[in-house]
Amino acid sequence: MVETTENSSNRKHQHLALTNSSQTSELMVDERFNYEPMLSNFSFFKNFKASKFLGKEMRAPIWISSMTGGTGDARYINENLATVASEFGLGMGLGSCRQLLTDQTYFEDFNLRPRLTDALPFYANLGIAQVEQLLKNNDIAAIEKLVTSLSADGVIVHINPLQEWFQPEGDIIEQAPIDTVKKLLELTQIPVIIKEVGQGLGPKSLESLMCLPLAAIEFAAFGGTNFALMEKQRNSSDLSTHEELSFVGHTALEMVEISNEIIDRLGDKVLCKNFIISGGIRSYLDGYYLISLSKGNAVFGMASPFLNSANEGIDKLRKFTAEMIRGLEVASRYLSVKE
Amino acid sequence: MVETTENSSNRKHQHLALTNSSQTSELMVDERFNYEPMLSNFSFFKNFKASKFLGKEMRAPIWISSMTGGTGDARYINENLATVASEFGLGMGLGSCRQLLTDQTYFEDFNLRPRLTDALPFYANLGIAQVEQLLKNNDIAAIEKLVTSLSADGVIVHINPLQEWFQPEGDIIEQAPIDTVKKLLELTQIPVIIKEVGQGLGPKSLESLMCLPLAAIEFAAFGGTNFALMEKQRNSSDLSTHEELSFVGHTALEMVEISNEIIDRLGDKVLCKNFIISGGIRSYLDGYYLISLSKGNAVFGMASPFLNSANEGIDKLRKFTAEMIRGLEVASRYLSVKE
Amino acid sequence: MVETTENSSNRKHQHLALTNSSQTSELMVDERFNYEPMLSNFSFFKNFKASKFLGKEMRAPIWISSMTGGTGDARYINENLATVASEFGLGMGLGSCRQLLTDQTYFEDFNLRPRLTDALPFYANLGIAQVEQLLKNNDIAAIEKLVTSLSADGVIVHINPLQEWFQPEGDIIEQAPIDTVKKLLELTQIPVIIKEVGQGLGPKSLESLMCLPLAAIEFAAFGGTNFALMEKQRNSSDLSTHEELSFVGHTALEMVEISNEIIDRLGDKVLCKNFIISGGIRSYLDGYYLISLSKGNAVFGMASPFLNSANEGIDKLRKFTAEMIRGLEVASRYLSVKE
Amino acid sequence: MVETTENSSNRKHQHLALTNSSQTSELMVDERFNYEPMLSNFSFFKNFKASKFLGKEMRAPIWISSMTGGTGDARYINENLATVASEFGLGMGLGSCRQLLTDQTYFEDFNLRPRLTDALPFYANLGIAQVEQLLKNNDIAAIEKLVTSLSADGVIVHINPLQEWFQPEGDIIEQAPIDTVKKLLELTQIPVIIKEVGQGLGPKSLESLMCLPLAAIEFAAFGGTNFALMEKQRNSSDLSTHEELSFVGHTALEMVEISNEIIDRLGDKVLCKNFIISGGIRSYLDGYYLISLSKGNAVFGMASPFLNSANEGIDKLRKFTAEMIRGLEVASRYLSVKE
Repeated sequence: MVETTENSSNRKHQHLALTNSSQTSELMVDERFNYEPMLSNFSFFKNFKASKFLGKEMRAPIWISSMTGGTGDARYINENLATVASEFGLGMGLGSCRQLLTDQTYFEDFNLRPRLTDALPFYANLGIAQVEQLLKNNDIAAIEKLVTSLSADGVIVHINPLQEWFQPEGDIIEQAPIDTVKKLLELTQIPVIIKEVGQGLGPKSLESLMCLPLAAIEFAAFGGTNFALMEKQRNSSDLSTHEELSFVGHTALEMVEISNEIIDRLGDKVLCKNFIISGGIRSYLDGYYLISLSKGNAVFGMASPFLNSANEGIDKLRKFTAEMIRGLEVASRYLSVKE
Repeated sequence: MVETTENSSNRKHQHLALTNSSQTSELMVDERFNYEPMLSNFSFFKNFKASKFLGKEMRAPIWISSMTGGTGDARYINENLATVASEFGLGMGLGSCRQLLTDQTYFEDFNLRPRLTDALPFYANLGIAQVEQLLKNNDIAAIEKLVTSLSADGVIVHINPLQEWFQPEGDIIEQAPIDTVKKLLELTQIPVIIKEVGQGLGPKSLESLMCLPLAAIEFAAFGGTNFALMEKQRNSSDLSTHEELSFVGHTALEMVEISNEIIDRLGDKVLCKNFIISGGIRSYLDGYYLISLSKGNAVFGMASPFLNSANEGIDKLRKFTAEMIRGLEVASRYLSVKE
Repeated sequence: MVETTENSSNRKHQHLALTNSSQTSELMVDERFNYEPMLSNFSFFKNFKASKFLGKEMRAPIWISSMTGGTGDARYINENLATVASEFGLGMGLGSCRQLLTDQTYFEDFNLRPRLTDALPFYANLGIAQVEQLLKNNDIAAIEKLVTSLSADGVIVHINPLQEWFQPEGDIIEQAPIDTVKKLLELTQIPVIIKEVGQGLGPKSLESLMCLPLAAIEFAAFGGTNFALMEKQRNSSDLSTHEELSFVGHTALEMVEISNEIIDRLGDKVLCKNFIISGGIRSYLDGYYLISLSKGNAVFGMASPFLNSANEGIDKLRKFTAEMIRGLEVASRYLSVKE
Repeated sequence: MVETTENSSNRKHQHLALTNSSQTSELMVDERFNYEPMLSNFSFFKNFKASKFLGKEMRAPIWISSMTGGTGDARYINENLATVASEFGLGMGLGSCRQLLTDQTYFEDFNLRPRLTDALPFYANLGIAQVEQLLKNNDIAAIEKLVTSLSADGVIVHINPLQEWFQPEGDIIEQAPIDTVKKLLELTQIPVIIKEVGQGLGPKSLESLMCLPLAAIEFAAFGGTNFALMEKQRNSSDLSTHEELSFVGHTALEMVEISNEIIDRLGDKVLCKNFIISGGIRSYLDGYYLISLSKGNAVFGMASPFLNSANEGIDKLRKFTAEMIRGLEVASRYLSVKE
């Protein structure tokens, strides 16, 4: 780019004024990465490689979680999310579809396949208590019908014992969830993703899941939206005694390290190493760091940043997503994870 | 539970509004536990195992310390504590009964056995200086009479040299407390519990006690109500020179680690590994953590949370205790201590 | 010096009043140095050794970076900096001279050799994107003409991919910078210094540079003025998504440790171990520490402290520089780096 | 002590009110000590052992530094300090006696031997620059005359290169102080104590001193009154450039560890292991900790707490000193240093 002297002069004047407000401390440095400015150019702006995930071609390693249906906002937000997922080639999971088992009033809130197109992963979502109940009633057909009606690729089953326990109207979980999941996998060919809801999964739970033929495991680790904390807030009875219980769990970084250890230790016994790393991921650098560190086949997911942008309209959401992918491209060229 | 779509919709709307106020940081995660949501169900709600402690069946591993008598509030608070201990099956220790040695005016403040019933542990309490004095006077009968009159199972002897030292009217401790305790054990069959009063016990003190045939050792570790600090505040003479002395001591965690090391090292020489782990325990998760970590036979005690709830009335206290036990049940199913 | 009793009395009275405002905490101690007051005298005040650097005799191991030209202030500030560099025997590098490639309007802003004299190092400065462009156009002569017209000893090439990327009008970097630098070194005999612009250089980048016959490497490490942060502030489009990217990089201390490791490992393969250690150096003690620690031949550079002093006039700048050198002399006698 | 029920009731009511303001956090615990309440009694209140130090019997291991003379306050404060040192059996060192070399106007400010009595250590004080000057002038007699006129046991030589350097009217130190000290020891039989003035002494300086036949070494470590900081404040010329230089030095704890290592390594080559541990000692627990940790023969000194109390009058000072010794007695019975 040719630059006039005047432009340069203006820019430098700004530089002078901004210097003192642009001081950092060495304590602020991000210690996760090596920055290598000598070794790469900008050519990546044209051909960013696609991520093969869940049998489809994603154009960036990013997973979007949408809301459950049933409020005025939900359809609007979900449609925005699906539009952007389609434009940028991202995977997408629905919020809980439980209501669709009995009532189609809000079906359109969940009906995102038309916007998303068949090229990208799209999953329905049910809680472990509902799955347990349906299996108890020999009603596996209800799950398959849900997936088919949404043209989804499969179903996410979310594991939320603390959430159920905190909710005044929470469901009883009668079976250990791992037994319910095993039974589900025996009874259906539908691809299944297991996710927690904000506390993550400990080493034994994670290992038990990685040895099953799941489509993927979503971390939903500790550090993002805390469902236990949320239920506690809206619960009319006083639950301050349980303050500390909201803080148990495992961070996304800890779960990456645990899953890497399991992969190293169990080798071929691991049947699922597709991971959607989510929970507490605040920026694309967090996501880039964790998927780089993982020995599995990993994409990363963010919930509240997407929801907040989606709530501000499609343009804001599009801008947010575009900048994030642009940032990922820079990161992939100039930053490598420290060993 | 069957849920209507409308309920679900209302709940989800709340979800949206609460999401942004329910963010956590990964730095807030509780690093003491593994959380294993896949491996347990909710069936524990029916049959929580009883804790055998001090020869009786407690229905939860919780110990309540009551107040000494003599103020208008004491009887009210102590009765509430005993009522709840009885309803939930907890053990209980009295505050200092020193006044009962000479004066029965406030006897009813201490007379909690009728409410507590015989099924649960209930202990009287005297300071080491009084015990020393009584033994010096060959008046062991006074101690036995105290225990008998209260229908107590035994006596707690509290060890409080710093407290006595800080008090303007404090007593002189003429013998090393360990010698007084040995002499007491020789002279009586009454079960004896030794407790500190807020600073805990160092390794040599703890070892000397664990080698005696005590009923139990209560930690009263550093981190909760600080008796030294309290005396310093109410002491009219200026004690700011002694500011730092209030902070010596041992935390409950350190004492668990010390006692585990003693158990490993001394084996059969250890005659007492019944522990009431107290001092700085703020929640049932703290208690659950420490009793899980201990190699002894341990329950945990909390003082000021019980006192504050008891002061707000029986309903508040009942609710507080019920929630705590409910939380312990969840913890025992889903949380294991990290190694 | 003979001191009257009256003076001593006055001074002591001040001592009394100041004692309480001169308390420190042991936590404030600088743990980098051993202080050895027994072993040195004050004789160094007369003959401080010169630093041989870049083939010239500097009288103190300090490097000054000046501003680019084109604003009213630039000439004034640059002249002050050159005057002081000359008086105290320091080396000096220009800010970006890009505009001089096409326009001589502000030539005098850069024309500091007359003030600086030939005895001291003086370097021109271009960005990697301009150098790449000039090499692509086979216009190496433009660089040589720039250096000659300024009577500079050589040229600094600054490497700034993140800065270009953040700037709305930023240039594309088409080649990996290391390839451009190699080509430049093949085509010209002009001494070349490579510097980053506030994020520093990772281990691979640093190693690739140390194996080239460069005149020097300037760290421009993370911790001082952050160009990425600056561009982000003045960039009209919203770049908050890239907040975290401003914090990647390497501190000066980390870069000293990396370069020491490279020197130890590669031995004779290292062709350049002249370092200008800069980026986040707040005081002469920081500089003294890092050049003492470096196994290379190192001076240290500071940008914003010099700019701020220069902006307050030549007297302030002279005082600042004199005190800094006086402090370095004390440090060199009484302080040694802890191992 | 017999206690009425009414007193007990009043006290308990206070207890209730104070409980919530007497909570501590386990993070506040003092990790330096084991607290052993079982193993000691209170009998130490009668016979606290004397400390043999510098050939005299101190009744507590505490050293007081007094002020230099020449202001109205100095005599008053110094007399109070000497009175209390005498009453409690402490050692004492004067502030700089430099003025007495040429002028006796304020002689009485320093003339503390009459109050102190011969039973306790009492030392004069000169700076290294004055000693150097006197030796250069072959005037060792001036030092001996100073000591004799004050009936002092010997002389403290303070080493203060940074202080001299910061002072506008500071003296030049022409010889390495260690050489001046060696020459002094050759020329006189007067006992010599070497002390720093607030930055402490590095390992080489400390080792060089410990191998000389000194009476004692006073640490004057980093963490208390900072003479460099004080001079910087009162210095009319702007010394903000030297901000960081005020923070170099060694803490008392670090110096104890260094001196222990030297004792272990050099064995019989160590000719002086009498230490006055001072600098940053805020309380008797700090002092108790450091003298317990030292492998030398150590007492501890505090400056500003004594000066501040002395300034408030003899009663305040007496109370402060009595409480400190009472605290030391408790500490010596119930607290042992953790290994």
